[in-house]
Amino acid sequence: MKRVVLVLLPAFVAVVLSGPLCAAEDAAPTAPAPTITLPPPDLVGTMTLEQALAQRRSVRQYADASVTLPQLSQLLWAAQGITEPSRRLRTAPSAMASYPLRLYVFAGNVSDLAAGVYLYLPQEHKLQLVVEGDQRANAGTQPQIRNAPVLFLFTADITAMSQRVDTARARDWAMIEAGHAAQNLLLEEVALGLVGVPMAGYDAVKIRTLLKLPDSEEPIYIVSAAKRGG
Amino acid sequence: MKRVVLVLLPAFVAVVLSGPLCAAEDAAPTAPAPTITLPPPDLVGTMTLEQALAQRRSVRQYADASVTLPQLSQLLWAAQGITEPSRRLRTAPSAMASYPLRLYVFAGNVSDLAAGVYLYLPQEHKLQLVVEGDQRANAGTQPQIRNAPVLFLFTADITAMSQRVDTARARDWAMIEAGHAAQNLLLEEVALGLVGVPMAGYDAVKIRTLLKLPDSEEPIYIVSAAKRGG
Repeated sequence: MKRVVLVLLPAFVAVVLSGPLCAAEDAAPTAPAPTITLPPPDLVGTMTLEQALAQRRSVRQYADASVTLPQLSQLLWAAQGITEPSRRLRTAPSAMASYPLRLYVFAGNVSDLAAGVYLYLPQEHKLQLVVEGDQRANAGTQPQIRNAPVLFLFTADITAMSQRVDTARARDWAMIEAGHAAQNLLLEEVALGLVGVPMAGYDAVKIRTLLKLPDSEEPIYIVSAAKRGG
Repeated sequence: MKRVVLVLLPAFVAVVLSGPLCAAEDAAPTAPAPTITLPPPDLVGTMTLEQALAQRRSVRQYADASVTLPQLSQLLWAAQGITEPSRRLRTAPSAMASYPLRLYVFAGNVSDLAAGVYLYLPQEHKLQLVVEGDQRANAGTQPQIRNAPVLFLFTADITAMSQRVDTARARDWAMIEAGHAAQNLLLEEVALGLVGVPMAGYDAVKIRTLLKLPDSEEPIYIVSAAKRGG
């Protein structure tokens, strides 16, 4: 019996040690994803709410013109910006303050921003690079997806919400929340003199592969932003 | 052969005639539901979009004070009002312009409006009486449901949409659309100096029974509106 224990002990030690050692080795070459600080949003504005509501229209014909970085910053803030930092509350409400949404930017023609896909970080009001290069064609085949200088993609991860309500309800609530946030975005486009359209049809498989989304994160909604053309 | 035709002909005529005759007889005792013309909405307003976005917060404590009929009119227009009459387009976008949403008002304390449940008619900007009396307690048990002077209920009927996409997708899109419309409503509350909270939890069975909803129409979302209280 004693002999068996002596034989097994070194193997046990090796297994325990291999975890942390390997993890440290794997992590070493991965640099943190670059982040871009966005200009602060304009919290005053010029257009009234009612004018924005009355003028909002789904538009699919765009000018071949860039969107500026301050415009992008303003649109992201309107969609999901923090409006009460102490409690991290946002411009759009979330059931049980669980915030299942994530907001990505497919930048194709944004001045002072390299083409790529970025994740919006609401707390820091920053963008985090996810994929380099112009990836708009990977979002879908609709002409307005190819022609808009920038696309916004909402995804939802209902893992946290599902611990408190059943999955079907949690998914419904995430859909509703995406509608809240997308309406903010569309109204802000009007206020900035831009146009766009929300799209619930897109290439979910391509998007999943491109962004390396975990199974728990589901693409649910795309909104375009552009100068009016046609 | 000839004899058979002669025998059947009167029966056929009787069947054809009975449809319209019976329908006219059934319809006779049912008076058309009363409608209330709403004051026209203010399309100019005073608060900027960005101020409304920055100030919107979920509030559950309300003053014991009425909401006015012009305020109610403005809230309904913001949520689902017609903004392009020629194409009947609304303040919130709808996938394939199919407009699956219906918007009901549970009026408990609205000045110049009898307590009751009303259906909003966007085309005419009118209310149609559905159930008389204060029915707020039938919407659910949350304190903010009992205390708000007015509640808005969104339902969805995806029958039309389901003829073009599968039912699961149509249902997702109706949820998203309810979010769009509810965000408009919440922002308009801010612009009017009111507060409220969206609620996805409510008593669907009681609501179905009360409003005699067909199986195809599903209650999906409630939003309260009130003056802020302590």
